[in-house]
Amino acid sequence: MYDIIFANNKTRGTTLTDQLKGKKPLFSCVIGVTETAKIPGISAAGKNPDITDYTPPADVELLQLGRCKCIPGVPVTPEGIPTPALITMSALKLADIPSLVVSAGLQVKPYVPFLDLGGKPGRDIRTGRALDNAEEVMNRAKIAGENLSKTADYLVIGESIPGGTTTALGILLAMGIDAKGKVSSSMPNNPHELKIKTVEEGLKASGAKVGDFAQDPIKAVSSVGDPMIPAHAGLVLGAADRVPVIMAGGTQMAAALAVVKASNSTVLDNVAIGTTRWVITDKTSDLKGLVAEIADVPILATDLNFGQSSFDGLKAYEAGVVKEGVGAGGAAMAAMLKSKGKITKEVLLREIEKNYRQILKV
Amino acid sequence: MYDIIFANNKTRGTTLTDQLKGKKPLFSCVIGVTETAKIPGISAAGKNPDITDYTPPADVELLQLGRCKCIPGVPVTPEGIPTPALITMSALKLADIPSLVVSAGLQVKPYVPFLDLGGKPGRDIRTGRALDNAEEVMNRAKIAGENLSKTADYLVIGESIPGGTTTALGILLAMGIDAKGKVSSSMPNNPHELKIKTVEEGLKASGAKVGDFAQDPIKAVSSVGDPMIPAHAGLVLGAADRVPVIMAGGTQMAAALAVVKASNSTVLDNVAIGTTRWVITDKTSDLKGLVAEIADVPILATDLNFGQSSFDGLKAYEAGVVKEGVGAGGAAMAAMLKSKGKITKEVLLREIEKNYRQILKV
Repeated sequence: MYDIIFANNKTRGTTLTDQLKGKKPLFSCVIGVTETAKIPGISAAGKNPDITDYTPPADVELLQLGRCKCIPGVPVTPEGIPTPALITMSALKLADIPSLVVSAGLQVKPYVPFLDLGGKPGRDIRTGRALDNAEEVMNRAKIAGENLSKTADYLVIGESIPGGTTTALGILLAMGIDAKGKVSSSMPNNPHELKIKTVEEGLKASGAKVGDFAQDPIKAVSSVGDPMIPAHAGLVLGAADRVPVIMAGGTQMAAALAVVKASNSTVLDNVAIGTTRWVITDKTSDLKGLVAEIADVPILATDLNFGQSSFDGLKAYEAGVVKEGVGAGGAAMAAMLKSKGKITKEVLLREIEKNYRQILKV
Repeated sequence: MYDIIFANNKTRGTTLTDQLKGKKPLFSCVIGVTETAKIPGISAAGKNPDITDYTPPADVELLQLGRCKCIPGVPVTPEGIPTPALITMSALKLADIPSLVVSAGLQVKPYVPFLDLGGKPGRDIRTGRALDNAEEVMNRAKIAGENLSKTADYLVIGESIPGGTTTALGILLAMGIDAKGKVSSSMPNNPHELKIKTVEEGLKASGAKVGDFAQDPIKAVSSVGDPMIPAHAGLVLGAADRVPVIMAGGTQMAAALAVVKASNSTVLDNVAIGTTRWVITDKTSDLKGLVAEIADVPILATDLNFGQSSFDGLKAYEAGVVKEGVGAGGAAMAAMLKSKGKITKEVLLREIEKNYRQILKV
């Protein structure tokens, strides 16, 4: 349907998209930081590791102001490829979709309104003590999710947290999910060995082995996770009782899904993963396999294609850079669904290019 | 209609309530603090002036958790009369209305999710320098209001800020509105002289005279106002372009209305004041007169009556204690409207008494 590719549980995926056609979504973006992102070679969500603290606030400023305020320009990879927030912002604007920023724990606050859940930045997971108050953050996120579920026909919940696939690997391994070599990366060359080594150091420091926290998601995220995950999972847990929730992101959503399942598996019927074609066709990761290990929920992927773009910064997405983030895939499909297909991938690309030109002054 | 009393612009008031019957509101509560509340004799929104910092966070905890967490029990006046948040909480619960807490500037953070607008607690207005970043807070509130207006059929925006009628008087006088002796009080004996003296000291310290800031609402609130007002007005300005907004409160809403009008008078067509009978029948204040001076917007008052209550803490409302706060009047009318009249004042009183009994264990 429209420009959406169905993977994992296609039956429920098509039923869901049928049901959501023309309906009104709320887009929410959970932002956070972890010191893990500053390990050299882990993250490309920033020009260099030291400025990754600015990427999440800059991303949401782009969504709500149409420009970044805490940094000049927009967040870029070390090669200069721009943030996927450009996609999200263009989709929300075209389809007039409201957004709510949720902070799970930040070093730098955005210059836009954000929902504070009492979370703090995450420590380097090699300490084995990533988070102090994950349970409180998850409980507050549930309250927020409950309230938000009464304001929209469905929720689309994205994320921005540099280093997030490494911490996702941490949570997945701590919970006993076979995730080695399966998490994605914003870099074309996925540094699996470095991620695994980082997680293994963290597990060792926490005194735990792979699978020890299969039934204890709070311990998993508190030891080797990041603040985004308990906030994201809490929103899902609070909302999916009442309305469908699209968990918008790449392989990090597998970690959030594992936490949701271990907390309250009854909401899984109302949950789908929303991502991009770049993630589900990525040969260096395996979102489909990861999700299948956890729960039989649909994966929906927006068929974005920047191959014909006149901008090298966008064309680079076809070479496997960035791939996803800031709920880009989920926001794009929500725009398509809300407009009943009037917003196609071509319409979206034109809007993205227009915004790219205006914002980057190229 | 239902148990709603119409005052000021009854024509538009009845049209509006007709239009809102059965529709879905979002309730938002703007909380903040000002050192002004600690001047002895100014505020009864707390057992004593020193603990007024806890009243706003405790109020919103009651709304979202059904109990307070940052204090034992619930906020009370020095005589032990409980917070109007009990009314708001009961109304939202009965009518299944979602809520969003907005912080305009706090000393004590609530244990529930809150939207952060970058605001800080207000200084004692006798300094003449009440706020540092009122414009930034108002701009962020506008962004929030725009987004929220896409999630509901209408907004009801309440407030909780101890000392707020004194700072409201400050703003009204700074903007040239004849407000002396007209602002309300949570005490039966309204300390008008103390409030006027406090504001006059503040105006003098700021180097301004009555009316000097008639065209400059940011200067008015920055000199002798409080953080709640620019946040509240910003939400209204952001939302009322698209959906009706009920400004829920007593005479403080006149100050917010003056700020809205001076910022963008075109939204006034979509705005009404929502309050309680206790406010519009109060002989020590004059909400109707204040609003009439500013703009011809409807005043709607919920006809709550606690005269027959079996609890002295509720009966005291009939003697002019508390009167309004935490958007009690607006939330109560939203519950009546959403339920198309099924929730009457009697139904609401029973729910309030039930919650009173459970929470205060009486």
